[in-house]
Amino acid sequence: MTLTVLGLGAMGTALTRAWLAAGHHVTVWNRTPARAERLAAEGATVAATPAEAVAANRLVVTCLLDHASVVDVLDGTDLAGRDLVDLTTGTPAQARDRAEWAAGRGARYVDGGIMAVPPMIGVPDSGAYVFYSGSVDLFAEHERTLAVPAGAKWVGDDPGHAALHDVALLGGMTGLFAGVTHAFALVHGEKDIDTGEFATLLVDWLAACLPFTQRMAQRIVTGDYTSDVTSNLAMQVTANRTMVDTAVDQGVRPDLITPYLDLSARGVAEGQGAEDGARLIELLRR
Amino acid sequence: MTLTVLGLGAMGTALTRAWLAAGHHVTVWNRTPARAERLAAEGATVAATPAEAVAANRLVVTCLLDHASVVDVLDGTDLAGRDLVDLTTGTPAQARDRAEWAAGRGARYVDGGIMAVPPMIGVPDSGAYVFYSGSVDLFAEHERTLAVPAGAKWVGDDPGHAALHDVALLGGMTGLFAGVTHAFALVHGEKDIDTGEFATLLVDWLAACLPFTQRMAQRIVTGDYTSDVTSNLAMQVTANRTMVDTAVDQGVRPDLITPYLDLSARGVAEGQGAEDGARLIELLRR
Repeated sequence: MTLTVLGLGAMGTALTRAWLAAGHHVTVWNRTPARAERLAAEGATVAATPAEAVAANRLVVTCLLDHASVVDVLDGTDLAGRDLVDLTTGTPAQARDRAEWAAGRGARYVDGGIMAVPPMIGVPDSGAYVFYSGSVDLFAEHERTLAVPAGAKWVGDDPGHAALHDVALLGGMTGLFAGVTHAFALVHGEKDIDTGEFATLLVDWLAACLPFTQRMAQRIVTGDYTSDVTSNLAMQVTANRTMVDTAVDQGVRPDLITPYLDLSARGVAEGQGAEDGARLIELLRR
Repeated sequence: MTLTVLGLGAMGTALTRAWLAAGHHVTVWNRTPARAERLAAEGATVAATPAEAVAANRLVVTCLLDHASVVDVLDGTDLAGRDLVDLTTGTPAQARDRAEWAAGRGARYVDGGIMAVPPMIGVPDSGAYVFYSGSVDLFAEHERTLAVPAGAKWVGDDPGHAALHDVALLGGMTGLFAGVTHAFALVHGEKDIDTGEFATLLVDWLAACLPFTQRMAQRIVTGDYTSDVTSNLAMQVTANRTMVDTAVDQGVRPDLITPYLDLSARGVAEGQGAEDGARLIELLRR
């Protein structure tokens, strides 16, 4: 098994080490040569230029700073007959652009979105995985190699869908961390409240709330926001004032939670007070 | 076991039914008598006035609309020697005010924050529980009764701490639901993406992110935001633009996630780029 890796930041380095550890032959290139030299000592072959790196192997993995870097680095290379797997973070639209650009140069293309931080890469059972989408033929041919550093989840032939899944999950995480940050800010430093014990209560509570996500999905799919509603938007909104006033009393700016409270209030103002909160995705989309 | 319940909204009714089902004698009062009459058919004793309801039992539970309603309803009653447990949603400051007000009228006081929706009340293993704080003597004396409709968690003698725990956990949940709503808005309706399958990926991902909450608590307690940082603020901020651009491309307003992204960017601007995201609670508190 041989492949090329272009881009040796923290993630590119972790990926390369995982492939080397699994006995793969890896040709590497990085703009700053020192990072490549370090991996040479671990068995990697260092290419002097991107063109040389691309020429070395059929499977070419890019893990660079951004969309512009990918096009910039690959511009002087011969991609004809190559299988390009781009793990650079970007938008779905950028991934579709790169797929088209690669096709125009004779390469098959798969885009990847990595759901992990570098220390999780190559660690069995770390839970790390990568969303892949684009050329199903490329994916089928290289799936075993791609699955070495982290689990490989195929999400379809639209090359933008790996990024869309990646960014959507990061959006969910952003909300989660925003809520957790707000909660800690409210209680930390309060006399007689142990932040560690509070963290356990918070984690248990959020874990108990998570299954509502599946019920939200059902409502969104069926468009039924009114059956079996246990906590409707009007009930949610009655707690908004208490949440904001408590934050202010505790010396905490409520900025992290106010957009959701405002959106809920807008739903009620638009006559959706008796409906489930899942209805809010429609307000977010206009 | 006898007690009085004042306020028979959805929550007060569910609580009363749980106590009746456990064989307790419950005296009820509600501003709208029809709701009390319904419970009379199930074994409750209906009081004509709040004063009569309070006179009937030592343990008096209020579950009313807001802080003002509690003081308004109890104003003409004789609270001397009564044990008042107020489950009305409010801020910590309001709970402390009520505790002082009750003490001035000769009553012991415990405040409660209910972590459940009404259908979870009285259901074994539903996970429903109530935070209690205030008079530990009152709580010790009535704990078995209080634990009938839902689990009872004692959080200390500051009467504001039940509400503070309640509101902090609701804040965490608000962030979680904001993130989930944003994520669904991004993918729903996208060709070849099944919203139900996406929900499973989202739940698994968020469950995997939850343990970071415990690590955040450790950092907040120790003030160490720099050791063993796997994803620092600067790395988080590089994804901000991708998250916002993707939302705009998908026709979704990014309002629910931008405050956290903006706060992260502010942390980087203030020189905290190499630190863990837990540092953001300090920015939220000034």
